[in-house]
Amino acid sequence: MITQLRAPDPAPAPTGLFVTFEGGDSAGKSTQIHLLRDRLAERAGLDADEVLVTREPGGTPFGASVRELVLHGDHVDPRAEALLYAADRAHHIATVVRPRLEAGGAVLADRYLDSSIAYQGAGRALDPGQVGALSLWAADGLLPHRTILLDIPVETIRHRRTAASLDRLERAGEAFHAAVREQYLALAAADPQRWRVIDGSGTREQVAAKILSALEPDLDAFAASRRDAP
Amino acid sequence: MITQLRAPDPAPAPTGLFVTFEGGDSAGKSTQIHLLRDRLAERAGLDADEVLVTREPGGTPFGASVRELVLHGDHVDPRAEALLYAADRAHHIATVVRPRLEAGGAVLADRYLDSSIAYQGAGRALDPGQVGALSLWAADGLLPHRTILLDIPVETIRHRRTAASLDRLERAGEAFHAAVREQYLALAAADPQRWRVIDGSGTREQVAAKILSALEPDLDAFAASRRDAP
Repeated sequence: MITQLRAPDPAPAPTGLFVTFEGGDSAGKSTQIHLLRDRLAERAGLDADEVLVTREPGGTPFGASVRELVLHGDHVDPRAEALLYAADRAHHIATVVRPRLEAGGAVLADRYLDSSIAYQGAGRALDPGQVGALSLWAADGLLPHRTILLDIPVETIRHRRTAASLDRLERAGEAFHAAVREQYLALAAADPQRWRVIDGSGTREQVAAKILSALEPDLDAFAASRRDAP
Repeated sequence: MITQLRAPDPAPAPTGLFVTFEGGDSAGKSTQIHLLRDRLAERAGLDADEVLVTREPGGTPFGASVRELVLHGDHVDPRAEALLYAADRAHHIATVVRPRLEAGGAVLADRYLDSSIAYQGAGRALDPGQVGALSLWAADGLLPHRTILLDIPVETIRHRRTAASLDRLERAGEAFHAAVREQYLALAAADPQRWRVIDGSGTREQVAAKILSALEPDLDAFAASRRDAP
């Protein structure tokens, strides 16, 4: 009996631009994605709504049902949960992201497969490498062209609260945040070609400028591909 | 990046008895499972409801929601569908089947991982070996002790209809049934230790007698383990 699930060799799409945003929940990913969308559209001569902004889990009606099932059901076995997220990803990539890239379009995603790996790595219910392989199979090997890690040092988060108000739950949350961050930094270090680590602790405008600067060559190449399009 | 999902080495549970029933939809699996449950309980000195009869997909409330999502949603990408069935399986095995086996109990299941492999093999949307590997990962390697294939020759099904009434849809259905059957027979031939192929074309009683006879050593061993239990 075959016991190995082999994902296709991971590779970015040959056309279009696929940028994913990763980081903790309070890193400001959503704000930065929308700022980037506007600048990217401007640069490529597109309307803002021609740049697709999407998210996982829940980027499709099917995904929203899956998200509902994971978040609001009773206890779900860890493998079942990983498989549900992978099902959402498979559907999202096959029906939304890949067709858009194949048509030469741009997609900005709030979380993608690295979220699954980093959060499993921090939670330790399952082997993060195995969760990555599952995600990659679900996505039929599709990698982003670039991944922005919006990195918030633990100290910055701590500064945003008054130290005295930290209850036990918040301290546990802080340890978990630190573990997720460590996983993300390790993923980024292992593939510097794909990842751009951005310090997310400045103002909204400062962070946006750093992201734009890190993606400069990608935005230029995408804008050029749009000008050359028939 | 890791691209292989490696399932644990497949093996049956060390205690209890786990028998799965496979075959086409009209093979009479449900009837035969309930007849076997009664005989197994009798032999082991249990009440009938102490032998767990379950099914996939849908053997848990979570699984019922998943089943709902697959059957009544809009078009679902094939990988997403396979992942959903695997999620149902992971939850069903971890929360229902494995605990029962670990307590030394008996579980009879209407369909298990071989259904996924045989139906994918016939449908050809995905590689059946890959779907098997996915299922095995979901089930954390758990194989049944025995699998009964209730095999109905295509001719028998044809005899049950009047040939003249076969419309195009029914002929397509017949070809699909034949393809599923072929996949099942190949799986059974590849692992004769686990599989018992039973001709399902006789009367209900004839088929039940053949199943009982094929499982005789398993029922004896299970009854003995119950007598030895503290």
